[in-house]
Amino acid sequence: MSEFDVWSIDARTGEKVEAVASTTTDAEVDAAATRSAEVAPLLVAAGLAGRARLLRAMADEIEKDGEAIIAAADRESALGQGRLSGELARSAYQLRLFAEVLDDGGHLELTIDHADPKAIPAPRPDLRRMLVPVGPVGVFSASNFPLAFSVPGGDTASAIAAGCPVVVKAHSGHPYTSQLAAAALRRAAASVAMPEDVVQVVHGRQAGTRLVVHPAIQAVGFTGSVGGGRALFDLAVARPQPIPFYGELGSINPFVVTPEAAAQRAESIAAGLAGSFTLGVGQFCTKPGLVFVPANADGQRLVAALGEAAGTIAGGPMLTPSIRDSFLSGAKQRAELPGVRAVLSAAGQISPHVLVASATALDDVLLEECFGPLVVVVEYGDESELFAALDRVPGSLTASVHCGDSEGAADSFAARVADRVTGLAGRILFNGYPTGVAVTWAQQHGGPWPATTFPHHTSVGTTAIRRFLRPVAFQDAPAGLLPAELREDNPLGLPRRVDGRYELHA
Amino acid sequence: MSEFDVWSIDARTGEKVEAVASTTTDAEVDAAATRSAEVAPLLVAAGLAGRARLLRAMADEIEKDGEAIIAAADRESALGQGRLSGELARSAYQLRLFAEVLDDGGHLELTIDHADPKAIPAPRPDLRRMLVPVGPVGVFSASNFPLAFSVPGGDTASAIAAGCPVVVKAHSGHPYTSQLAAAALRRAAASVAMPEDVVQVVHGRQAGTRLVVHPAIQAVGFTGSVGGGRALFDLAVARPQPIPFYGELGSINPFVVTPEAAAQRAESIAAGLAGSFTLGVGQFCTKPGLVFVPANADGQRLVAALGEAAGTIAGGPMLTPSIRDSFLSGAKQRAELPGVRAVLSAAGQISPHVLVASATALDDVLLEECFGPLVVVVEYGDESELFAALDRVPGSLTASVHCGDSEGAADSFAARVADRVTGLAGRILFNGYPTGVAVTWAQQHGGPWPATTFPHHTSVGTTAIRRFLRPVAFQDAPAGLLPAELREDNPLGLPRRVDGRYELHA
Repeated sequence: MSEFDVWSIDARTGEKVEAVASTTTDAEVDAAATRSAEVAPLLVAAGLAGRARLLRAMADEIEKDGEAIIAAADRESALGQGRLSGELARSAYQLRLFAEVLDDGGHLELTIDHADPKAIPAPRPDLRRMLVPVGPVGVFSASNFPLAFSVPGGDTASAIAAGCPVVVKAHSGHPYTSQLAAAALRRAAASVAMPEDVVQVVHGRQAGTRLVVHPAIQAVGFTGSVGGGRALFDLAVARPQPIPFYGELGSINPFVVTPEAAAQRAESIAAGLAGSFTLGVGQFCTKPGLVFVPANADGQRLVAALGEAAGTIAGGPMLTPSIRDSFLSGAKQRAELPGVRAVLSAAGQISPHVLVASATALDDVLLEECFGPLVVVVEYGDESELFAALDRVPGSLTASVHCGDSEGAADSFAARVADRVTGLAGRILFNGYPTGVAVTWAQQHGGPWPATTFPHHTSVGTTAIRRFLRPVAFQDAPAGLLPAELREDNPLGLPRRVDGRYELHA
Repeated sequence: MSEFDVWSIDARTGEKVEAVASTTTDAEVDAAATRSAEVAPLLVAAGLAGRARLLRAMADEIEKDGEAIIAAADRESALGQGRLSGELARSAYQLRLFAEVLDDGGHLELTIDHADPKAIPAPRPDLRRMLVPVGPVGVFSASNFPLAFSVPGGDTASAIAAGCPVVVKAHSGHPYTSQLAAAALRRAAASVAMPEDVVQVVHGRQAGTRLVVHPAIQAVGFTGSVGGGRALFDLAVARPQPIPFYGELGSINPFVVTPEAAAQRAESIAAGLAGSFTLGVGQFCTKPGLVFVPANADGQRLVAALGEAAGTIAGGPMLTPSIRDSFLSGAKQRAELPGVRAVLSAAGQISPHVLVASATALDDVLLEECFGPLVVVVEYGDESELFAALDRVPGSLTASVHCGDSEGAADSFAARVADRVTGLAGRILFNGYPTGVAVTWAQQHGGPWPATTFPHHTSVGTTAIRRFLRPVAFQDAPAGLLPAELREDNPLGLPRRVDGRYELHA
């Protein structure tokens, strides 16, 4: 073990605890990517049922090792046992939900058009379309979700469900957690007679770069910063064969309180916001970072209550020393901007910060995400001031609208706000708080740049599988050469569109 | 009209007929893109029914002007009245098919998850997901389909259906056809009280470049060469906000004849191939460019029959002088490669060329598309030689497998070939010829690089609409603030997935 040079660091103390792995060499990355391509056909051959079994075994195995995995993740992230128990449960649930997706089969988009010699405008052949896996997928773990957006997380679950083996670049903040989780997933594969290498892990920044440009890798899932994500995105699209890079980068998550909502619920909104922007020490991609309140007495009440509520919430260690440094310098920079008033801040401290600015004098820096427990409140005078400011807000994962009791109709102020923010986010919340992302069929976790590299896809929810699939149409195939999914007699009992009409399996 | 500098050229004579438009200036491109963003909300507000009406009006109007449009297209492309009448009918059909897609509504992927306070692993809110348009779309017309892949073509139809206005960069080979088609589409918009500017046209290479980088443009559809497509792709992904560039570039379209098929049907396969690779003077993106035949007497019979059949087919004027020059130099380069035998060729002539090479000595140049009436036949000794050669074939739009009567089972040589080529193409044909792309629900016209920039999408068939849509989830929205598509009472009667189960409208 003496050659190990990847250290597991205690996030609470900053101390090196133990070396848990070796930095992956270029040759090892190449071997992992090549091996991934070798095992890919076996994941395809396993079919829907085989991959569903694999996903359920993976859920079982990470639960079996739950205690050790949670302890490691807590040591490496300081996120706490409670939060991490929830994250493990969420990860297991997510793996099982993708098994349900495979049971359902709707994600294959099966479509059959029978031959029609009399078709207009020209005779047409028999065409049968389905989605097939794209091939090996590179996954970049997130700092702030050592489980649900890391080795056993959503990208891995959706890629495996699609039929794509993964090579995960472990986050430097939680290498030991990554090793433990990978071991559980690999053991699960072996338990259902699949190759362990459907999941592989690499360590080190250079390994990540090499992974993105390796010819065997056909898509990448990423959760991280705008800077790091953009650099890898640029590599992915500059390859001789460009590949899709599904990156979730930075998000300011605008949050609009209408005048009526402020009048009716200033204090309760303030309490909810305080809890949301400080959750997990503000280290959520959906943290509400920019809150619009009316520039009136109700807005002032809300700001005061927000400062008070947040003032009772403790800070805490952040995920890594560099995240801590970035937060402190980002908070300082913002607090010192002309026109910015600090309602709550403690210079040099990891504690909740509430800053206030005017919609008419909103510095560009305030529109950028500050990862950590900091919120910027923007006071707007009227609808035109609000909308002019919203027009400057970058694409986000979420946008929240808090509306009053009388604003539930399509001609209300709240309706106009909702319509406006739908243009800039992937999830629109009403009277709620964006932290906490449910894993369901309808979830959308993505949004216009820089929230994600492209807004067409999601990294949470069942449709995340679509990122790793491509369509193939079979024309006039002899029955015996068709994939089972497309056979006329529908032996797998799958839903499909036939001659233009969608049919559910009876 | 004296400032017009965009000339309509007679493809048969190479002569300038008339100046039909002005080169679009940078300022005009900017104005068009900005205007596109202005009219976008009206396309959204029109709803499914309004856009279906618009698409049907567009089909009607291009049919009304059919005679003039076909005459212009024939003059500018030399493709012939017969082929162009078919192409106009196909374009009108395509517009109407997208209206049917809107009538159906399945493309919205409506998904409702009701709130569940007892959900595992955590209570969940009410979430309702649908797809919404991405915004203005840039479209690049193809040289070889002046209608079906140009102004009134599939990219325009699918973008408008999605709710995205288009700015079309007219192809320099058919500016007059583009002007006439645009006038018809714009008149259609006016006829249903929509702004004419849901379709705009720009002219000139620099206008195309500027369009791709304009901040208002949110996606691009492109059909053209690998070189031109890659250059524009690079611009699209290098923007401060990268956008998806859906490019269909070059495709060699491998075509495999099994030994049994060659033994049973050498002559009929040769006849079909001769018709397919010379259709439209070989100027189809699905032209079979690389034909694998067994290196035996049956293969030799096929090659001889192919040369004979193709020898009876005339050449003809090509689309543009530069396409003609590229074809002649490409044909010469290939014919002169060591190990290449010319079964049919006429140096310096636009006429069918049949070249033969061995699978074990296949020059890289032979794996590149040669746009025009040229086919390369590759003789393979056995399965391993064939598969080694197929491993070198670049991603393609189509791959064809011709199999014998006894090869209809999953353990046959043909089955192994089909499995292999599924990895490199978007459409797999059996015992057919790839030219001719049916516009249906199940069609897939796309494939791995360089056939397209990314293989996840199609530019033909109903699912082409997916390129211009992004998901949005509404969380806990008051009933009155929900889009009609997502209301609980389903007033539009749309299919949707509710709490994980797909429901058809009764």
